Amino acid sequence: MVAVITDVIRAGKPVVGFGFSSIGRYGQQGLIAERFTPRLLQASFDELADESGSQLDPLRAWNVMMKGEKPGGHGERCVAVGTLDMALWDLAAKLADLPLYAYPASRVPGTTPAANVSAYAGGGYYYAHDDIQQLTNEAKQARDLGYTHFKLKSGAATLERDIERIEAVSAVMRGAHHVAVNAMNSYGPGTAQRAADALAPLGVWWFEDICDPLDFSTLASVARRYDGAIAAGEALFSVAEAKLVDDHGGLRRHQDVLLFDPVHCYGLPGYLQIVNELGARGWDRERFWPHGGYLFTLHVAQALELGGTEVNPFCFQPFGGFADSTLMTEGKVSAPEAPGIGFEARQATRHAFNTLLDDQAIR
Amino acid sequence: MVAVITDVIRAGKPVVGFGFSSIGRYGQQGLIAERFTPRLLQASFDELADESGSQLDPLRAWNVMMKGEKPGGHGERCVAVGTLDMALWDLAAKLADLPLYAYPASRVPGTTPAANVSAYAGGGYYYAHDDIQQLTNEAKQARDLGYTHFKLKSGAATLERDIERIEAVSAVMRGAHHVAVNAMNSYGPGTAQRAADALAPLGVWWFEDICDPLDFSTLASVARRYDGAIAAGEALFSVAEAKLVDDHGGLRRHQDVLLFDPVHCYGLPGYLQIVNELGARGWDRERFWPHGGYLFTLHVAQALELGGTEVNPFCFQPFGGFADSTLMTEGKVSAPEAPGIGFEARQATRHAFNTLLDDQAIR
Repeated sequence: MVAVITDVIRAGKPVVGFGFSSIGRYGQQGLIAERFTPRLLQASFDELADESGSQLDPLRAWNVMMKGEKPGGHGERCVAVGTLDMALWDLAAKLADLPLYAYPASRVPGTTPAANVSAYAGGGYYYAHDDIQQLTNEAKQARDLGYTHFKLKSGAATLERDIERIEAVSAVMRGAHHVAVNAMNSYGPGTAQRAADALAPLGVWWFEDICDPLDFSTLASVARRYDGAIAAGEALFSVAEAKLVDDHGGLRRHQDVLLFDPVHCYGLPGYLQIVNELGARGWDRERFWPHGGYLFTLHVAQALELGGTEVNPFCFQPFGGFADSTLMTEGKVSAPEAPGIGFEARQATRHAFNTLLDDQAIR
Repeated sequence: MVAVITDVIRAGKPVVGFGFSSIGRYGQQGLIAERFTPRLLQASFDELADESGSQLDPLRAWNVMMKGEKPGGHGERCVAVGTLDMALWDLAAKLADLPLYAYPASRVPGTTPAANVSAYAGGGYYYAHDDIQQLTNEAKQARDLGYTHFKLKSGAATLERDIERIEAVSAVMRGAHHVAVNAMNSYGPGTAQRAADALAPLGVWWFEDICDPLDFSTLASVARRYDGAIAAGEALFSVAEAKLVDDHGGLRRHQDVLLFDPVHCYGLPGYLQIVNELGARGWDRERFWPHGGYLFTLHVAQALELGGTEVNPFCFQPFGGFADSTLMTEGKVSAPEAPGIGFEARQATRHAFNTLLDDQAIR
């Protein structure tokens, strides 16, 4: 977690931007503290301010962070930059007194926020005991919260067992076409095809993270035979890798799903590079469903009119899920209207971020 | 820098392994301290020891560090693992009372150390003042130290200026075929071909880091037209990326040069994955010239009978260069005979590592 604290005082307190490292990669504090934060702190006002000279410009701040970074090596530092970047967008939107989803429109040409966002519940890990029963309960809980679509994990059990799990969730969610399957990059060249063949008759919503994220030849070979949608990109972190998976991964632009995580891809400016580059190659924004499953990705999906977003209502606390007050209606949701990302509107998240301020005497 | 301190006492002191993060990527201490060191410290004796149960096995320790790591995202964490891995090899070789170059033969099947290693001087950055004159002096200094080959930077000036620099160094080094040119990933699809065409008549030793390390289509298009050797791989950090550049980069296995940095590629076990995978695809070990330019890469090149290694005699201190006593004879050099890597045999390096022990009361 990071907090970017300003000397702008509102309601008697400094305005603070909050960010965290998204889900799944951790330990970037050295990169944040030694490499990227010093560049921000040493930057001049002019390097960080927008043309009007009055507001923080997160896009210009991003250029400051990336100054001198070498090409290649897109892991971890992209998360470090994304963590700080999230806090900078939270901060900039707060300073502009806008909810984040409405803010990029003022900075990024061609951006119009959507009225709401499709969201599905991610989860469905293997349970050590009563796996099918507990998985079924989890899916029911999601359905009762208003989710129409659910994503579960596969690839760590036998194919037969995985099919059984998918069928159990499909029964709850009113059909396999409401159920996505995340194989967690578990299949190799030999096993991927077998898994795809076993999945094909079920007609699931999409088949995700089939093989090693850089094993484009296996991905392309599955794409040639598997008729359903394939989802990829959660473990690709740069526009350079996005071009490669588009060049060599065999993905079908009219139907497949791109999961790039906006935080893990060097933050929103890096994510926009990917959306724009792939957009120029014919990928519609509806094909983007960012990985993550928390308030920031909801804002990003709404701001950029993406296809939708993951939600993690039950895991990855205190960050998974949206605001306490967020209502899910028939699989659609809107970002909160508070200025910034609105982490403050979720009690557990607010509490976690506030620990960063404990020794700052500003709470 | 890291120090791995054991409770094995020799000559009244604990045996300690030293490692550092190689050249060019920094700030991994959070990853080292939060993610990889705890796994080593929490591992059981059996998880770290070799079959005899008496010695540290760096290959098994590497498996401990990598446990649960997700595929993809090959940046920074690979450096963190490589830093600890270097210290573990230093330590294991010291415990076995062998110089590192002779040690992998006991752990890695099919490994026979070479008698000596070809080494070239890396450097040749742009000077702010009197560039050509200072560059010429630097090359002369390398030549006087016994180096027969020299590598300089290009791509940050006009092509005319870069050619002038290459010709100045070529005159010192007895011909352009003794001079490699490192473009520092500076060219895009349009400019790469122009640079290659300008370089072609000179007949340089190799043309390195032409474009973005993941821009395989530009690399392949240069390789189709440029007859001389091309060097690549310094900014690729995994066997997954090594396969991709071999699949799509157009490199020619009989003549091109692979620069993978053993530390940046998750340490020696990760580097061995690359050497073995590309070896199975027809790349001879002579085509590998690891990036780095210090004692560890010298040992690795000698242990694995690689084509040769970079040396940075004048830059990246206190790590660049070999031992104080290392003699270069007609471009050939041997690793020191002291147990381990022999960092202790270079005064400046020893001093730097010893600062890690200052608060350990074991010096």
